[in-house]
Amino acid sequence: MNTRSEFDFLNNLKSKYTLLHVGDDCAVVPKDSDRDLLLTTDMLIEDVDFRLEWTTPELLGRKTLAVSLSDIAAMGGEPKWAMLSIAVAENLWKTDFVDRFYGGWFEVANEFNVELVGGDISRSPDKLVIDSIAGGEVAKGKAILRSGAKPDNAIYVTGTLGGAAGGLKLLERGFEITNDLHDLTANLVLRQLNSIPQLTMANILQSLSILTSMIDLSDGLSSDLMHICHESSVGAQIYADLLPINDDLQNYFHSDDYFEMALDGGEDFELLFTVSEKNISLLENLPVTRIGEMTKNPGVIELIRNGKPEILQPKGYRHF
Amino acid sequence: MNTRSEFDFLNNLKSKYTLLHVGDDCAVVPKDSDRDLLLTTDMLIEDVDFRLEWTTPELLGRKTLAVSLSDIAAMGGEPKWAMLSIAVAENLWKTDFVDRFYGGWFEVANEFNVELVGGDISRSPDKLVIDSIAGGEVAKGKAILRSGAKPDNAIYVTGTLGGAAGGLKLLERGFEITNDLHDLTANLVLRQLNSIPQLTMANILQSLSILTSMIDLSDGLSSDLMHICHESSVGAQIYADLLPINDDLQNYFHSDDYFEMALDGGEDFELLFTVSEKNISLLENLPVTRIGEMTKNPGVIELIRNGKPEILQPKGYRHF
Repeated sequence: MNTRSEFDFLNNLKSKYTLLHVGDDCAVVPKDSDRDLLLTTDMLIEDVDFRLEWTTPELLGRKTLAVSLSDIAAMGGEPKWAMLSIAVAENLWKTDFVDRFYGGWFEVANEFNVELVGGDISRSPDKLVIDSIAGGEVAKGKAILRSGAKPDNAIYVTGTLGGAAGGLKLLERGFEITNDLHDLTANLVLRQLNSIPQLTMANILQSLSILTSMIDLSDGLSSDLMHICHESSVGAQIYADLLPINDDLQNYFHSDDYFEMALDGGEDFELLFTVSEKNISLLENLPVTRIGEMTKNPGVIELIRNGKPEILQPKGYRHF
Repeated sequence: MNTRSEFDFLNNLKSKYTLLHVGDDCAVVPKDSDRDLLLTTDMLIEDVDFRLEWTTPELLGRKTLAVSLSDIAAMGGEPKWAMLSIAVAENLWKTDFVDRFYGGWFEVANEFNVELVGGDISRSPDKLVIDSIAGGEVAKGKAILRSGAKPDNAIYVTGTLGGAAGGLKLLERGFEITNDLHDLTANLVLRQLNSIPQLTMANILQSLSILTSMIDLSDGLSSDLMHICHESSVGAQIYADLLPINDDLQNYFHSDDYFEMALDGGEDFELLFTVSEKNISLLENLPVTRIGEMTKNPGVIELIRNGKPEILQPKGYRHF
């Protein structure tokens, strides 16, 4: 039996209950006459979204908030407050885990001026469960949605691709981190465990007022680009040669493998965005890379590799 | 070893990180010049907070939202939007569970004009996990906190007490519900499974502008009254004879048992509030019951039973 994906379920829910604010990185609801409120929630489950033996409590706390702040970055917004719900098994509760977890969480909160305003702590029968909620603000009507991309818009990404997927692979192979961050010599593993929300870049890009759509790279380039294609009813054409693949990957992996990591690997938490061709000069001197153009072919992504086009199937992370 | 309670942990967190907005049923953050925003999150875990074999998917969906709306009621606010994160095991995902769960959730959402604006769906390795997030509004500075109770204030509750605990006991004894709500003949079981947020009463009480503190009865009267005592730095004296014990309890339980359910049983989701003695005439004709007075004795609750005072230890639900 072919199981319904969570994306199908959500699309069905949106049409059945006429949900107007669901389907972007954040919900956008009116705040006051000048500003909109941005809202996001992400659930992280032990042994599905993370493994305790692969990280430290501090890094897990950092990533928990970083994931939510990345959603706010993807809308071109500024984070303001957060809530944190966790369910902890009794044996973990008795250790210093929660103190260290909150310690890491507050490092990121302080860095980005985010206030913890609420939360919930409960007992879990087994696995650690975290729900991270964040609220932010954006100038009224200026949230950058997934739905505004137009055919012929240029497609850009910030930073590099595939590092987080490479780090995950190294952890699966048995790479061990210590509790001391300074001992973390493998950059790729840090890309996986210590995600950095691209709020500064989002702020710069927002201030240009030229972006037609944006999303953060959480599921993986092929999946996240497909989200923009679906929400904007367009297609895309990207070039293998243009992808800014993380340099460190070549030290550990074969080229076919790291190309796939850049294309389908999740959790880089870089930004993927589109801009009208006439505005691309404004992006000069910014650390962003053009990887292709949007097309008129709804829901179809073409990958140009060695001069030949192939249809790209989104292969990023899905739960079902 | 004596395990640190979640309340101790939160108090420690509040002082360590100077959290100004944590410690009420909702966080209160500024919205615009006239209104404050209310924010709440509640995590519900299978086999800790609910059992799938004791309820229906629809009732669980209803209760999920009701619990959050009750938190907004407890602040005297009006709910506006909600987010819902769930993690579902693969075998449950393949059934009609999620559709029916959302069906129940939307019944309550429609009843109280709450819009679903976002959420997250992920896979759970085992147990169903739900995080319910809701946002509401209240006139600026008018949120009713736990911290405003004064010595000699009169203490009131809405509705009746102990019904939800009685319903839980019946379920533990093997009472079975069917999928058809109309077959639910036991009112007590409905008190447990189909919680009703007291938003209408909260609205009436808020409009009187006389409440000095309020909380919803989620942990149990003894625990929730203690939360008010701690946050207000006062004590309380309540009278056994005055407690509005749910009438249906006498059909199933001995008087000692149902008295304890009224005192310590959680999840009635009624409102507990305090009012200055000089204003109590404004509460005439409302379905509220006076159960005692606040005192100057910080953190001490006295129960007057058969004319004799005894110190009441909070025995409501705690996770650790």
